[in-house]
Amino acid sequence: MVFQESFAIHTRGHGDMQDLSDAVSRIVGQSGIEIGTVQVFVVGSTGAIGTIEFEPGLKKDLPQMLDRLIPPSREYGHEQAWHDGNGHSHLQATFLGPSIAVPVAEGHPVLGTWQQIIHLECDVRSRDRTIVVTVMGE
Amino acid sequence: MVFQESFAIHTRGHGDMQDLSDAVSRIVGQSGIEIGTVQVFVVGSTGAIGTIEFEPGLKKDLPQMLDRLIPPSREYGHEQAWHDGNGHSHLQATFLGPSIAVPVAEGHPVLGTWQQIIHLECDVRSRDRTIVVTVMGE
Amino acid sequence: MVFQESFAIHTRGHGDMQDLSDAVSRIVGQSGIEIGTVQVFVVGSTGAIGTIEFEPGLKKDLPQMLDRLIPPSREYGHEQAWHDGNGHSHLQATFLGPSIAVPVAEGHPVLGTWQQIIHLECDVRSRDRTIVVTVMGE
Repeated sequence: MVFQESFAIHTRGHGDMQDLSDAVSRIVGQSGIEIGTVQVFVVGSTGAIGTIEFEPGLKKDLPQMLDRLIPPSREYGHEQAWHDGNGHSHLQATFLGPSIAVPVAEGHPVLGTWQQIIHLECDVRSRDRTIVVTVMGE
Repeated sequence: MVFQESFAIHTRGHGDMQDLSDAVSRIVGQSGIEIGTVQVFVVGSTGAIGTIEFEPGLKKDLPQMLDRLIPPSREYGHEQAWHDGNGHSHLQATFLGPSIAVPVAEGHPVLGTWQQIIHLECDVRSRDRTIVVTVMGE
Repeated sequence: MVFQESFAIHTRGHGDMQDLSDAVSRIVGQSGIEIGTVQVFVVGSTGAIGTIEFEPGLKKDLPQMLDRLIPPSREYGHEQAWHDGNGHSHLQATFLGPSIAVPVAEGHPVLGTWQQIIHLECDVRSRDRTIVVTVMGE
């Protein structure tokens, strides 16, 4: 059995982290699937999906750490071709990846108490993002 | 068809890397699924799942590299709020990610000879971890 | 329903990035699956799969950034044991990961216009790689 649903989120630019866990849980509930996996995917090359403890400290730490490792710079080849100021955004998003899959058991995503599913905006400006959630199982 | 099974592992703190390949293969065998995928997931926000050549050199190199890129520090926002000494653990675990999916063919996970499925403990202390394995296919 | 197909690619050594999107789309088309997910996996521990905007700037930026963060070095434990010059290759590949899953809707992978599925060679030499594509759904 497959159940797929998309929803839109609006982001406020680089480092905006949003907790998708409740939205994902709701879609798993609607699917009627009791056991399997749920895959969460962001369309586009400058957004990222992952899991983290969603709390104010890490909400700042993760984007800061990404900017320290992969800083904004005009030196990227991407910048020299496109001049849109988001070369580091692409690299950060590729590093974290656009998707996560989480097991489903007893009709719910299996997550730790301090483990949430998040979208992290890596682009330098506000964006509208499409999140695709695919539940598969029985 | 879906087959899901969990098992527990005990870890000895930061950098403890364990090879889950045999346990995952056994669960794929029990599932009777011949073709599809197997997804391996760790519950919690300071453990990570990935693939690597499981040999003594890389067992040390991977956690050392993570500590070099994302060092322990009291400067993280997470630390300033929670003082549990594991801000870097959360960031390292989010970087590597909590899950991996591997194709299944002829009733076995498709892996290279030097490619193993591992759990890496990113937390600073010994932990009991739950690993959820979900096999889907026919 | 499950549909699985493998194909081979030849790479020209470290940093060779190849766009797999068309090959993956073709396999999704052949599968007849309209809704679900497609998982793309590289067999081996020194290749990586991800998504990125496939354009000449980022084709150079991503491997350069990886070499800056995880540089070639004889100091890795892996090097001291095996002397094959690719300790950093293993670590880079583990960082990016060997697989990606993308939703399938209306018989096509759901990707952004500037979001391609790529293989990145992290090894220091030319390699023949097996890519396994598994489509699941209805």
